[in-house]
Amino acid sequence: MEKVEQLKNHLADVVHLRHAAAVLGWDQQVNMPPGGAPARAEQLATLSRLAHEKFVAEETGRLIEAAEAEVAGLDADHDAAALVRVVRHDYDLATRVPTALVEELARVTSQAHEIWARAREQADFAAFAPTLERILDLKRQEAEALGYKDRIYDALLDQYEPHMKTVDVERLFGELRTELVPFVAQIFERLDAVDDTPVRKRYDVERQAEFGLQVIKKLGYDLTRGRQDKSVHPFTTEFSINDVRITTRYQEDWMPSALFGSIHEAGHAMYEQGCYQGYEGTFLAGGTSLGVHESQSRLWENVVGRSRAFWSYFYGDLQRLFPEQLGQVDLEAFYRAINAVSRSLIRVEADEVTYNLHIMLRFELENDLLEGKLAVRDLRDAWNAKMEAYLGITPPDDGKHGVLQDVHWSSGLIGYFPTYSLGNFLSVQYWEKAVQDVPSIPADIARGEFGSLLTWLRENIHQHGRKYWPAELTQRVTGEPIQVRSFLRYLKEKYTDIYGL
Amino acid sequence: MEKVEQLKNHLADVVHLRHAAAVLGWDQQVNMPPGGAPARAEQLATLSRLAHEKFVAEETGRLIEAAEAEVAGLDADHDAAALVRVVRHDYDLATRVPTALVEELARVTSQAHEIWARAREQADFAAFAPTLERILDLKRQEAEALGYKDRIYDALLDQYEPHMKTVDVERLFGELRTELVPFVAQIFERLDAVDDTPVRKRYDVERQAEFGLQVIKKLGYDLTRGRQDKSVHPFTTEFSINDVRITTRYQEDWMPSALFGSIHEAGHAMYEQGCYQGYEGTFLAGGTSLGVHESQSRLWENVVGRSRAFWSYFYGDLQRLFPEQLGQVDLEAFYRAINAVSRSLIRVEADEVTYNLHIMLRFELENDLLEGKLAVRDLRDAWNAKMEAYLGITPPDDGKHGVLQDVHWSSGLIGYFPTYSLGNFLSVQYWEKAVQDVPSIPADIARGEFGSLLTWLRENIHQHGRKYWPAELTQRVTGEPIQVRSFLRYLKEKYTDIYGL
Repeated sequence: MEKVEQLKNHLADVVHLRHAAAVLGWDQQVNMPPGGAPARAEQLATLSRLAHEKFVAEETGRLIEAAEAEVAGLDADHDAAALVRVVRHDYDLATRVPTALVEELARVTSQAHEIWARAREQADFAAFAPTLERILDLKRQEAEALGYKDRIYDALLDQYEPHMKTVDVERLFGELRTELVPFVAQIFERLDAVDDTPVRKRYDVERQAEFGLQVIKKLGYDLTRGRQDKSVHPFTTEFSINDVRITTRYQEDWMPSALFGSIHEAGHAMYEQGCYQGYEGTFLAGGTSLGVHESQSRLWENVVGRSRAFWSYFYGDLQRLFPEQLGQVDLEAFYRAINAVSRSLIRVEADEVTYNLHIMLRFELENDLLEGKLAVRDLRDAWNAKMEAYLGITPPDDGKHGVLQDVHWSSGLIGYFPTYSLGNFLSVQYWEKAVQDVPSIPADIARGEFGSLLTWLRENIHQHGRKYWPAELTQRVTGEPIQVRSFLRYLKEKYTDIYGL
Repeated sequence: MEKVEQLKNHLADVVHLRHAAAVLGWDQQVNMPPGGAPARAEQLATLSRLAHEKFVAEETGRLIEAAEAEVAGLDADHDAAALVRVVRHDYDLATRVPTALVEELARVTSQAHEIWARAREQADFAAFAPTLERILDLKRQEAEALGYKDRIYDALLDQYEPHMKTVDVERLFGELRTELVPFVAQIFERLDAVDDTPVRKRYDVERQAEFGLQVIKKLGYDLTRGRQDKSVHPFTTEFSINDVRITTRYQEDWMPSALFGSIHEAGHAMYEQGCYQGYEGTFLAGGTSLGVHESQSRLWENVVGRSRAFWSYFYGDLQRLFPEQLGQVDLEAFYRAINAVSRSLIRVEADEVTYNLHIMLRFELENDLLEGKLAVRDLRDAWNAKMEAYLGITPPDDGKHGVLQDVHWSSGLIGYFPTYSLGNFLSVQYWEKAVQDVPSIPADIARGEFGSLLTWLRENIHQHGRKYWPAELTQRVTGEPIQVRSFLRYLKEKYTDIYGL
């Protein structure tokens, strides 16, 4: 595999530059004093440019072609073949868009952030509309440059969820809509059935941190190959398979934020940490898509972390740490409190029942905007109409409760939202298969033994890194394509019980 | 200045890559989980190689020549002329040594570190001798490649202290030896006159950190453009004029370590922070030499931080923080304790009186080794003989108390040691001029007002960055070349008083 080795060596610089940029990005959000900002922006721009230049160089193209010829006879399952396939995919994505367009997008979205933040603050959609118009125009050009067969959205979606098609997402959301919208309406009529005040008391931040760290260590997040810090926005970042870091933010008056946030990020991090060590420093390391990544974070956060089994093990510890807040709250009341559903207008605060309706709405609007079926000037009304249709609520403002709430569009991230829902669907689909393969998993969790689940995830998902595209991986793991059935069954069972429907 | 601008733009990548590497290096020593080490080494190697390749590229040479032509008519004092001069200096240093030799040195010193650490541990000089032989051979080749007129040592010294000559260092050490060796002998006869037990009690590390931070903020270390963390070996590093970080280590049973260590690193950091903002991102930012850098750290650490005036302001605060340890210790007893002289065999633990004798010894041995006047096999005996001659003590072992104590030689750092002493000499020479220019400085310090000194240092030294070579800078600032007279006067006055000689 001489040509494949040459390709690998050539790309090692790209990997190192990207990881170096990730270290600088982590430091920027975790440690950097304010004075460091201007120079840091320059340093990051230089590292990104050098990584990009090295990657899109003609030499890369030649090396890929030579490597493709070398692996032509190999089984598709061979690591060398997978590496060349993944590099080809990324190289085509990176080279199809003209540099002038890439630069224009960077320029416009960098200015857009300020404009969006101010418009959101002032709940003034009209102030952001012309900028969004411009971004959509550039994203359409980008999609045309990337190419697509069926729907323009396919080209953008593919950047985050390789080979996933818009029609398939529509089909999944179609099933979800049919079943979930009436189910949510039923729950909304019984919101009083659950009391979440136990988790809305004051919880000392130091103790929250202590407990959260204890939990994620127990789940299997390896702190000899990672660390946890504080940042304004929680995130996971990796500089190696063996240095995968997470951040958390703490709210004194809403305990679930940091706790489930930590479990969520640890879920992402364990995926990265579980990658086969032989992929270190190559394009095969990392998660295969944003959707599969989100399946890991949500599996640990919701399917495991918000389950009765999980808390039957951990609740005693939490009560001992917070006797004032939880001494009089029994396990069942706590379990219900952390699973309370609410009429939230804000996606990032939404519970697991309503969350995907927020995503579906955005996915539909993005498609309509890109395809010219919806004008930007009508976006706000369309948003509010869908909120009413899916969730039965109308935003009181266009700012943080309405159409301007998310940062994504101002950053040019169009086609990104559906990966959150794909992750939620997959989290339960994988979980069901894991429990089918290893029936002791729920009982193991109830006695604080998370190794059986983590081992199954490592063997079936984590170790493969980017070797299989998401659809291939899901087929291999579960024997069927991605489906929403498992997720709906899970939600209905869990919440019919909690809300006594 | 079109050509100068082109050169500056071309070199911006080099500066950004070096600063990115510095961030990765800082993270490695402050935050990195152990698992991250192998990948980090690769990332750092890639960043260093890319920075080096970009810098030594022929294009750089052409741009320097064009820029030199452009600044030819300018006053030497012009920033553009200074920039081109500094870049030419660094470029010649970087390009004169053949790549094969650079790589061989990197290889040998990287292996040498392990060998040295084990030999030091086992106090076995013979185990390190062949490696040192090899390193000396390579350093001689490096010196020949760099070129020199008079002494082979000049070529190596120049890397750390541009344009400083070996004969001048010999002259300075000659004066030092004549006056200091007998003075130290006098003090050694009266060691009982000072009791350092007050600073050898148990001091809570958290409180040490709190006090240290309060002190360095008060001195003028700007924490909106820096931060302080813990690390095994204290250091200062900068990613920008506006992001200059320091680290400290804490010893529970020897309070001066962290406190004076923090002041020392803050002294380095204030030099970097004080650079003219117009030099940001160029080769003119930073300190002009290791010696001048050390003058800043030692001025704050010793001349200011170990003075009566300083403690007449701070001692009350320290006593309140440590009433058990210091409640019964008066200011004078504390002042004497932090200035205790000892028969230390270990350079890094040496007091300010004996410190430079340790350096002089190393400087002399390095010269003799390089010039072939001393064989490596005789180094240990030569070391011990000089320890006896200068300090009147003989090491009980060749490990941490003897010839193997320092990391420098195993790292190929030959010619580096004298910069410590140059820094000590300059610290007092600059201080005397500062007080001559602004006579209120000592009184200002006694009332906790450090702005008058810092302003003088900024105006006369810090702001210039690398614009003037060290000798030029010292001449401009003090009206004379570097001298040891001021330093000796300072030591004799201070310690004649403390030890009642």
